Formats: sequence, C-alpha cells, structure tokens
Amino acid sequence: MADEALFQFLHSEIIQYVNSAESGESENGRCVSKLESMGFRVGQGLTESRHISVCRFTKDTPRFKDELDVMKFICKDFWTSVFKKQIDNLRTNHQGIYVLQDNKFHQLTQLSAGKQYLEHAPKFLAFTCGLVRGALSNLGVKSIVTAEVSVMPACKFQVMIQKM
Amino acid sequence: MADEALFQFLHSEIIQYVNSAESGESENGRCVSKLESMGFRVGQGLTESRHISVCRFTKDTPRFKDELDVMKFICKDFWTSVFKKQIDNLRTNHQGIYVLQDNKFHQLTQLSAGKQYLEHAPKFLAFTCGLVRGALSNLGVKSIVTAEVSVMPACKFQVMIQKM
Repeated sequence: MADEALFQFLHSEIIQYVNSAESGESENGRCVSKLESMGFRVGQGLTESRHISVCRFTKDTPRFKDELDVMKFICKDFWTSVFKKQIDNLRTNHQGIYVLQDNKFHQLTQLSAGKQYLEHAPKFLAFTCGLVRGALSNLGVKSIVTAEVSVMPACKFQVMIQKM
Repeated sequence: MADEALFQFLHSEIIQYVNSAESGESENGRCVSKLESMGFRVGQGLTESRHISVCRFTKDTPRFKDELDVMKFICKDFWTSVFKKQIDNLRTNHQGIYVLQDNKFHQLTQLSAGKQYLEHAPKFLAFTCGLVRGALSNLGVKSIVTAEVSVMPACKFQVMIQKM
C-alpha cells in the first residue's frame, strides 16, 4: 500500500508542479508533453535489465517471441510492478495497434467523475503514456501511445507500433 | 526492487525538471525549497491514517508515547516504507535535536563520490528533508529538517523540534 501511495503522491506533485511551471506558454499542451517525456525516461529506466521483472522474465526467455509477447509483458509484469494490478483487457487488430484497458486506473481515481473534469484527464494520463512508450522503446519496439477515458476511472491506452 | 527503482527514477526526474524550471531566479535556493515543499506534502500524505504502517502502528498504540517514539517510527516504519531500509543510527541530545544517519542513502548513490559534486547534494536531499518534516507534522511534531553529507553516500538528517 505504501509504495502505491508514494507513487500516487509523487505523481500528483509532478502534475501540479509541471502544470504551474508550464502555464503561460501554450499551457496544457506543453505540460502534457513534459509529463510524457518524464514518463518515457522512467519507463526506459525501469525496463533496464537490472530492474523489475524484465530480468526475471528475460532470464527464462532470452528475448521476446514477438511484438504481442512484448505487449503481454507490459500488461502483466510491467503494469503490476508500477500499478500493483494487471491490465484488464488487451486487444489488437494484428496490424500494429494494441488497446490496453484498465478498468480502474489509479491515477484517475483522484479526479472527480463528473464530465466537466474530463478535460483534465490528459494531464493525469500523459506520464503513463510516456511510461509505456519508454518501456516499449527499451524493449526494441517504437510506438506512439495515447490514452482515452470514456467512463472514469476506466481508461484505454492505445499503442500504435511504428514500423522501422 | 521495482518500487525502489520507480521512486528513484521519479525522484531524479523531479530534481532535473525543478532544477531547469527554476533556473534563472536565485537558482539553487528556489529549486531546493520547491523540492522540500513537494516532499513535505508527500510526507504528510503518506502518514495519513489510510496509508503505510502508521495505521498498523497506531492500531496497537493509539498514540505515540513521546517525541522519541515518533522519531523511532520515522527511522523504522516510515524509512523502510520509502527507502526499503531503516535509518542506521539515531542520536539525540534530549533537548529536541535528533540526528538520523543513513550510511547508504539511496538518493545520493546516483551522485559521483568526488568532493566536487558535494555542492549538488542539497538538491538530492531536499525532497527527503521535506518528506520527514511532512510526516512529523502530520504526527503532531513541528520541526525543521536539514541534511548534511560528509562522506558519500552516507548522510545525516538533523531534526530540530520546534516547541509550540
């Protein structure tokens, strides 16, 4: 519980700080992109071999079988290590688009559920989009990650693989 | 390991970002004070009853016996929940000053050990000073917390209790 709380509190502080520091210049967009970059670097760091389950994982299977295999790692091991739960649903069109659904995304539970708050959602999702993109990048998969909220606190992350 | 890494990476990102965002205006001082405030709020949050061991702790002993008791909680339960280790040494002059020594402070292990890097140490310690001050404040103890590094990565946090 403590680890989860620590991450949550830090995450809120970062959003608040970046939001206030970036206000003035094209506001929301810049804040979101800063948060995404921070997430990207953290995601990269976490998947470096000396951290988390990627080493446990890669000890048995020295490399991922395919793209889908990498995505499954993100949905299970990676998500659990950061959010203490797995992704609830993974779907793909088998053409490089993956949709990861989290039915109760922690970072959104801080936001009130009213529709009027939906406009703030991107700030609460940007860091995580970056986190996924960074992790994937470190595992050799280049991607664009976006997020969308339909009914809070459920959230869908869309990963579009960028073919080299 | 993952949780520790997640905190470490986030902590580095925050330092880097705050440092760049605050540069220009009295630089270091403002950066350090921002980081301290962020730590303060996170420390307060973590000791709120629904998080970490403070609830376990307070279930058996509904309130702390005295100031020293609170400090022991910070050195053991609180430190472990954040840094995955206890404080190595706690000393007091029994007049409201406590020195908490961590012989291998994680947030410093990122810094090279050369003397020339010592000037950067305050940035790496500010968040944690705030964390301790926030936790203490939420437990009813008003304090001033400073940190000093003699030989990296050992670190001493000095807590001066502010009598009401």
